[in-house]
Amino acid sequence: MNFTQDDAQKLLKIIKARRDVRGNRFIAKPIEDTKLQLILEAAIHAPSVGYSQPWRFIVIKDQATKDKIVQNFEDENTKAKKIFHSRDLYQDLKLEGINEAPLNIAVVYEPKDEPVLGMTSMQKMGEYSVVCAVQNMWLMARSLNIGIGWVSILDEQKVLKTLDAAPKSQLIAYLCVGYVDKFYEQSELKMLGWDKEIKLHKCVEFL
Amino acid sequence: MNFTQDDAQKLLKIIKARRDVRGNRFIAKPIEDTKLQLILEAAIHAPSVGYSQPWRFIVIKDQATKDKIVQNFEDENTKAKKIFHSRDLYQDLKLEGINEAPLNIAVVYEPKDEPVLGMTSMQKMGEYSVVCAVQNMWLMARSLNIGIGWVSILDEQKVLKTLDAAPKSQLIAYLCVGYVDKFYEQSELKMLGWDKEIKLHKCVEFL
Repeated sequence: MNFTQDDAQKLLKIIKARRDVRGNRFIAKPIEDTKLQLILEAAIHAPSVGYSQPWRFIVIKDQATKDKIVQNFEDENTKAKKIFHSRDLYQDLKLEGINEAPLNIAVVYEPKDEPVLGMTSMQKMGEYSVVCAVQNMWLMARSLNIGIGWVSILDEQKVLKTLDAAPKSQLIAYLCVGYVDKFYEQSELKMLGWDKEIKLHKCVEFL
Repeated sequence: MNFTQDDAQKLLKIIKARRDVRGNRFIAKPIEDTKLQLILEAAIHAPSVGYSQPWRFIVIKDQATKDKIVQNFEDENTKAKKIFHSRDLYQDLKLEGINEAPLNIAVVYEPKDEPVLGMTSMQKMGEYSVVCAVQNMWLMARSLNIGIGWVSILDEQKVLKTLDAAPKSQLIAYLCVGYVDKFYEQSELKMLGWDKEIKLHKCVEFL
């Protein structure tokens, strides 16, 4: 299959329009099953090292589970606020949308017991495959005008326990998924002045 | 910006048509600078934890560098062949396209010295941001009808030394980038019977 210049430009637009969405932007409108299906279908078409497909997607609506994840976030963010005590902006930032988003999806890496092709030298390739799945989900969601926020201020082991995950599982991403009232034009942290954009020529070199 | 159903379907097509390309499919046609630019532009619009943008892209055409990477691969794959000694298929697989691809791109994670928002609890988020950039590159390349192969059978520390990377850098991905004579319809490892497809319902659960 050959794609056209228009297709490439459309993809670039989706990539550039993707945002990390927090609780201040999600709306209550439920996610249709057909759209959730498309997001998960995008996920499992990610590259996986040695075709190992080492992912598990736990779709969460259960309020008791969400409550535990919120508490986990609050505990971890209390520590983080101390680390960033000198930056007033951090203290007021809304950094998750666990309750505001109608769906949460925990994306978990389940290592294989046997050796995996392509992982014999770089053992993190299994995790990285699952991260590729997350990025596919994020782009697919954006093309469906659905927002995703990746919550990383969490104690991983407690999340895995809350989810009753299989032994040896690793939490790769905890995603909040929902429609939004709007997508910002740019990264929220850039707009708020948390950090500056690094231009392309600053991060590319040629050999 | 709102995307249409057609846009979402187009993205899903690109996602499903992406392949891991090895040396048996690359052709010598050079990559135009404008297309390389688009691939790198897609990369730096990936999500990055705390807007840290912790990536560096080393674009490699230099033959002496490629020679060292090939040697690195050969050494690591000799070990891997022993691990997979009972699987004949492994012994004959072409698993890289370092010389066949006109461009190689090493994608490196450069950790920050100061604390990063969103990394205070899950410290791998920096690496994961760089993986998201790799997946953006891969999809962007596919939409431009350019193939990418991710070579992971490499000694990471030796690659970093070969590239004269900054201290504390981590190699996330070593990519071979080039036009191809064809893209396979399905994952090559699936077609060859290395492993079976895991259907969506097997890797999703609901809470």
